[in-house]
Amino acid sequence: MQWDKVLATRSTRMKASEIRELLKLLDQPDIISFAGGIPDPALFPAQAFAEAFAAAMTEQASAALQYSVSEGYKPLRDWIAGEMGKIGVPCDADNILITSGSQQALDYLGKLMLSPNDTAMVGWPTYLGALGAFNAYEPRYLRLDPFSNADPAQVQAEAAAAGGRVKFAYLSADFCNPTGETVPRAGREALLDQAEALDIAVIEDAAYQVLRFDGEPVPPILALEIARKGSIEDCRTIYCGSFSKSLAPGLRVGWVCAAKPVIGRLVLMKQAADLHSSTLSQIATHRVASAMFESHTAKLRATYGARRDRMLAALARELPEGVRYTRPEGGMFIWLTLPEGMDGAALLARAIAEQRVAFVPGGAFYADGSNRNTLRLSFSCASEAQIDEGIARIGRLLRG
Amino acid sequence: MQWDKVLATRSTRMKASEIRELLKLLDQPDIISFAGGIPDPALFPAQAFAEAFAAAMTEQASAALQYSVSEGYKPLRDWIAGEMGKIGVPCDADNILITSGSQQALDYLGKLMLSPNDTAMVGWPTYLGALGAFNAYEPRYLRLDPFSNADPAQVQAEAAAAGGRVKFAYLSADFCNPTGETVPRAGREALLDQAEALDIAVIEDAAYQVLRFDGEPVPPILALEIARKGSIEDCRTIYCGSFSKSLAPGLRVGWVCAAKPVIGRLVLMKQAADLHSSTLSQIATHRVASAMFESHTAKLRATYGARRDRMLAALARELPEGVRYTRPEGGMFIWLTLPEGMDGAALLARAIAEQRVAFVPGGAFYADGSNRNTLRLSFSCASEAQIDEGIARIGRLLRG
Repeated sequence: MQWDKVLATRSTRMKASEIRELLKLLDQPDIISFAGGIPDPALFPAQAFAEAFAAAMTEQASAALQYSVSEGYKPLRDWIAGEMGKIGVPCDADNILITSGSQQALDYLGKLMLSPNDTAMVGWPTYLGALGAFNAYEPRYLRLDPFSNADPAQVQAEAAAAGGRVKFAYLSADFCNPTGETVPRAGREALLDQAEALDIAVIEDAAYQVLRFDGEPVPPILALEIARKGSIEDCRTIYCGSFSKSLAPGLRVGWVCAAKPVIGRLVLMKQAADLHSSTLSQIATHRVASAMFESHTAKLRATYGARRDRMLAALARELPEGVRYTRPEGGMFIWLTLPEGMDGAALLARAIAEQRVAFVPGGAFYADGSNRNTLRLSFSCASEAQIDEGIARIGRLLRG
Repeated sequence: MQWDKVLATRSTRMKASEIRELLKLLDQPDIISFAGGIPDPALFPAQAFAEAFAAAMTEQASAALQYSVSEGYKPLRDWIAGEMGKIGVPCDADNILITSGSQQALDYLGKLMLSPNDTAMVGWPTYLGALGAFNAYEPRYLRLDPFSNADPAQVQAEAAAAGGRVKFAYLSADFCNPTGETVPRAGREALLDQAEALDIAVIEDAAYQVLRFDGEPVPPILALEIARKGSIEDCRTIYCGSFSKSLAPGLRVGWVCAAKPVIGRLVLMKQAADLHSSTLSQIATHRVASAMFESHTAKLRATYGARRDRMLAALARELPEGVRYTRPEGGMFIWLTLPEGMDGAALLARAIAEQRVAFVPGGAFYADGSNRNTLRLSFSCASEAQIDEGIARIGRLLRG
């Protein structure tokens, strides 16, 4: 069987990541890895989940094991709607779709909006997983700059010449993966202006939003748009949330919050694509979140915040002149920009071989593979000793 | 926001099912419904799952709550590979991808193979959820007949004229939804011949395969192809399995079994689409399946088999002349063909209003909406008393 004959054109854009292959080599115990970017499992509310599973199986086993509705478990959607209200997004359960992680939300939104050769505006750099999800729908990428003064008609004309239309701008506005940076309020407002002018949707990826350690919270883009328009039903912003960073990722529970016509279409899409997310995962997430979301995320913020502080201190101490880095107010990542001409991927090979330390080279986070003189460090799973020693190793690597 | 401006062309094919809307009205207690088609929750191995969740959270909580690999939980993949070996499909864990139910497998296989205007061959009728999953990739449908003697070159020429290529044949060969019928061995062999001649893939949906009540088991299509070719690696058949009918659907655990190049591509697709299926669902499914799959499914076969017998007896007693129905050897469904000119959808409206009994009209299971004089009955959740009374009501409806 020559499989190429039966593959869709989109399959040519589904490629194994070289970096991911390289990172598979990292399980040797003498390597200090800042590559991961996953939550620290020691911080999972495991006891609360164990109790939630037990209670669900005692009180509602038939429902937990049975097919359920595509839009998701109603009590969880109600709880999320309440939380959204607290951050300036008044809405109800019919504005919420439960997805299998916010990764699935990105896949579904690409599927909903992108025909081949349409244009998606993304950050430069942006979340690698968003590019992976959107790639399946064969878009063209355009660099998103909230303060761009490009003529909207010209931007849409170029998208038309490329064979489609600009459909949406995607960004993670708080402590984004990979840079850890936050888009300030003025940037969010400018982005909304630009989206209005282009008549496109905005996908707001809020995966890290709850992990703010310090600084002044900035309202979500969706909240700013509701403040302009009065109701979520008139908004073009589609908000993607996740429990992966706040409670636990293995259960795969995230959500989309948007105007009802968008949610209605996504419900049909989910019904056709996987019927619904794991019923028990949703029930257990509702039980744990409603009991301890605020206290648990406060604990996460304290722990991750201390790790960020430790890593920033080590970077200040160890890095040579000419290396710039971000100072995130939350999240899991710090982003390094090396002198021009350096290559993060080549550096990773040397880092593993010579210094037994690892990170993610930055080029993969650019839709065009540019800016290879960048790299991403995660502080989420590292101890203080690992941070001190690992950053010292990176310092030696960069000076050596 | 005028959402139409930012929607993909595929979104026009995602429509709410009229039938599903009608069936939402069925929760009145005086209606006897044979519409469902879901497993009886009284038969879920709830105690075994409760113990599995508890054990997983005691012994492997960090793993159960953490991100995991896209291909799925290795012990579960090993167990499935062993089961596949027992039904004539020798393979190993690298031939298995865990999906969020076999519905997700159908979505991914459509995504992998279908570009717009490609041709998918499907049964007439076929599983409604397969049409829903494939529709997102904008195919043309062609009626699948294993014994067709159409010239393969001509079939591909017509597909090319329609703007694509025939990519695969999809069928559920055992007790399929909706008819409950089984494709005999000769039909499976003929289908493989046809697939060879057309040089297309075969998607074998085995969702109901384990629910055979009586009659002689027929080897899976994949097993027949391996018998021809010697190895799964040389096979064009892609087998989709599910725990939804054998253990419980709410956890959303299914699998694909195929040649490694196919599995490798699907792993990349899953990584980009939802990272992985719920880790805990996979761990618990492995624990329950390895402890009691055979004994539990034997119990299901006995219970569902008795319900089928009861429904067949009631149909023989109650239906007027001129109504034909299938006599399935397994599964959950019986299929009725009414006299020409009758309309299942119109009949459902009358059935609910006049007789307080429900079923699924058959037209939706045809890719072209034809054969509206058909309907599907499910016996999976009905008691003996409900079967006797409900079929009597259908008899009165058809005679009245």
